[in-house]
Amino acid sequence: MNAPADHDHLAPAVQLREVPDALIGALQTRFGTQCSTALAVREQHGRDESIFDVPPPAAVVFAESTQDVADAVTLAARHKVPVIPFGVGSSLEGHLLAIQGGISIDVSRMNQILSVNAEDLTVTVQPGITRKALNEAVKHEGLFFPIDPGADASIGGMCATRASGTNAVRYGTMRDNVLALEVVTARGEVIRTGTRARKSSAGYDLTRLMVGSEGTLGVMTEITLRLYPLPEAISAAICSFPTIEAAVRTVIQIIQLGVPIARCELIDANTVRLVNAHSKLSLREQHMLLMEFHGSPASVQEQAETVQDIAREFGGNDFEWATTPEERTRLWTARHHAYFAAVQSRPGCRAISTDTCVPISRLADALLDSVAEADASGIPYFLVGHVGDGNFHFGYLIDPDKPEEHRLAEQLNHQLVHRSLRLGGTCTGEHGIGLHKMDFLRAEAGDGAVAMMRTIKRALDPDNILNPGKIFTL
Amino acid sequence: MNAPADHDHLAPAVQLREVPDALIGALQTRFGTQCSTALAVREQHGRDESIFDVPPPAAVVFAESTQDVADAVTLAARHKVPVIPFGVGSSLEGHLLAIQGGISIDVSRMNQILSVNAEDLTVTVQPGITRKALNEAVKHEGLFFPIDPGADASIGGMCATRASGTNAVRYGTMRDNVLALEVVTARGEVIRTGTRARKSSAGYDLTRLMVGSEGTLGVMTEITLRLYPLPEAISAAICSFPTIEAAVRTVIQIIQLGVPIARCELIDANTVRLVNAHSKLSLREQHMLLMEFHGSPASVQEQAETVQDIAREFGGNDFEWATTPEERTRLWTARHHAYFAAVQSRPGCRAISTDTCVPISRLADALLDSVAEADASGIPYFLVGHVGDGNFHFGYLIDPDKPEEHRLAEQLNHQLVHRSLRLGGTCTGEHGIGLHKMDFLRAEAGDGAVAMMRTIKRALDPDNILNPGKIFTL
Repeated sequence: MNAPADHDHLAPAVQLREVPDALIGALQTRFGTQCSTALAVREQHGRDESIFDVPPPAAVVFAESTQDVADAVTLAARHKVPVIPFGVGSSLEGHLLAIQGGISIDVSRMNQILSVNAEDLTVTVQPGITRKALNEAVKHEGLFFPIDPGADASIGGMCATRASGTNAVRYGTMRDNVLALEVVTARGEVIRTGTRARKSSAGYDLTRLMVGSEGTLGVMTEITLRLYPLPEAISAAICSFPTIEAAVRTVIQIIQLGVPIARCELIDANTVRLVNAHSKLSLREQHMLLMEFHGSPASVQEQAETVQDIAREFGGNDFEWATTPEERTRLWTARHHAYFAAVQSRPGCRAISTDTCVPISRLADALLDSVAEADASGIPYFLVGHVGDGNFHFGYLIDPDKPEEHRLAEQLNHQLVHRSLRLGGTCTGEHGIGLHKMDFLRAEAGDGAVAMMRTIKRALDPDNILNPGKIFTL
Repeated sequence: MNAPADHDHLAPAVQLREVPDALIGALQTRFGTQCSTALAVREQHGRDESIFDVPPPAAVVFAESTQDVADAVTLAARHKVPVIPFGVGSSLEGHLLAIQGGISIDVSRMNQILSVNAEDLTVTVQPGITRKALNEAVKHEGLFFPIDPGADASIGGMCATRASGTNAVRYGTMRDNVLALEVVTARGEVIRTGTRARKSSAGYDLTRLMVGSEGTLGVMTEITLRLYPLPEAISAAICSFPTIEAAVRTVIQIIQLGVPIARCELIDANTVRLVNAHSKLSLREQHMLLMEFHGSPASVQEQAETVQDIAREFGGNDFEWATTPEERTRLWTARHHAYFAAVQSRPGCRAISTDTCVPISRLADALLDSVAEADASGIPYFLVGHVGDGNFHFGYLIDPDKPEEHRLAEQLNHQLVHRSLRLGGTCTGEHGIGLHKMDFLRAEAGDGAVAMMRTIKRALDPDNILNPGKIFTL
């Protein structure tokens, strides 16, 4: 593409808009101690897990109710000042960064479960509750919420980025599991986007429009989710493979046969080594699939046998099993800590994460060429993937004081993304666009589709106050 | 609500916009014999399965390619003339009616499968292919597309109304099974809304915005769908119950236990009588659940045993089985012909169909009170439901020459919808809003959410040429 880039991959364009003293005063009057301008508080709300460093927001409002959010947005709207919703700060692509200044609206105190409807397998929560807290609360009803991006993210944040993670191969993503939202619009109005009915054809799908909109179309204040009955039986298995390709071919067959596998994760041999060192495990240091099966005892056994047969065909070892909850938790915690294991393996480093997702038949092509490129680069990296979905993550471990490493990592990511797009995939399976992938979005969706997104944004937020400068520039 | 009604339930507001001769001339020049102004052709494109009678469109363009659609829309846009996409004409809520005049764009000749990716379980089709033709074509690959609204609708039409039907309880709706679209915008531009990747967090979910937008935001020209491996084993079972409530309680338990039932349909005793007469069957004339189980032979057996146990608890009879494809087809055809069976039972009648969907715990409340009201009204009706989703349809059989019957049926529907909304449900599970449910949409979604829909519509279609007057008035 010859069109000018939306942004610089190495440093986002910061264009601070004025935050008038009158607004700060009005917020302090309305919110008292719920509004902070302390530098430490602002700095904590001015960063996420991305590599970018920009000035913090001018103030933080700790919202405790929908009315608080509506009032904060209304006041900000009056002064055309940006507002940025904040959950726990675990996003990876700069979503929370106040690149145009403004106010952070922290919803972490809005962390209540408003109603559990066990009979209907639905729950309505406030956006600040984290997925682990939610699961803890519904466990005694025999229910769970499957979406698991690894981090203990807030449900609001997971909606905003259309998160997914390890269970998506069976249970879908946030796209599939949000039934309805309450949303504060750019004018401070409160609307509802759906009901508790499992399906509906009632007008435009505003729920799905909001899910994945990264805070640019509204601030979510209530979220109704689907829950699932805790499976009668759960088993986790590890299977080691001689090559990444053998592991990937196994996954392709599992999916094509329609085995209802609940989790299917790839960890490459090098990352297994890092995980062993970090989590004090003794996993066989080969490429591995980490899998989980849910269902009745008979169905879990049947699934596992089918998958073991497939794996053997491709040279996979005998499964190693984790059937007790403790063993499973240990394994999955190790998997989720792969990021930290990797980062700690190179002291002082930062990880540049990739997030492409391709049709599963192209997974081997996408992965193997990118592994070859990463190996040739000399940059240390880790590799994990929700391969049942065709989604995988490289994390390039760079020294933040060496711009040439940062540039090289971005170059590897660029090659990976464009390869994935050529193979019919997407530049982001679950992390979102944020500040980091705007050019990739244009390459993927085309100028026409991005123009449509911009048109919707301008119509719903004419003063561009809702998390401006994310997904695309206006 | 005291706000003025969007429309009259008994007769839609017809406000014909001018279709200049210059446009007709330009269409004839561009399209030759692919453009027809013959009255019979226009009349065929000016009606659907709804009860409304309005003047036909001024011309019909038989599009054969994306470029044809783009050119037709571009020409119409130049004259600010409405365009209405047309598949097979099976919509129920007046979606196809040219209440503001304009041009029908018939996409039935765009009925090709563009690519099947069996490894990825995806297929890309043109919008005019019907679901049966699609299934016929992918069967030999061991694949199927599960969404089954009964009618042999076009895939484009099914996208437009966010259709679902009998398999949705397991496989979801069109919302869940469309991966990507090619769409012609109101300006005649061609955009793409996604990739073949199973999941993505790349910007606004334009695919989901288009699915269910009833032709008001764009004309779909290519559709990428998820496919599923044909189950190894399929069994259908009938179970009769002494009361509707017993049947519904059984369904609630099935869903709550997480049994992956593929189909779960309620047919009330009266409708079973009509079906027997029409399809020459000898089903036991009691309230019944018609169910289908998909999976491995062991899993199908396990599911069936679990469900049989639950049904017995609620007084259900022993299952009657249909295991051969022929028996199953006969049963499901009978189910799908319930509508025709009912309509033929009262010669000359028309059916006013309802389509509410409630959280499953409220299904018995919603159904039983509505049955009592319908019984008391004296109007003959049929009752079928995708009860696994909480979705059910009354069809009130009215004499179209008796406005008092029409009015009474609308009154019953009104009561049913408002009851369902009070119970946390939606006014339409799968048929869409069209002309008929605009007031219900406002009652359900609220003025704020409908205003947001209108804002999006105005932004994407400023001259209101895409199927105007549907979903809401502008």
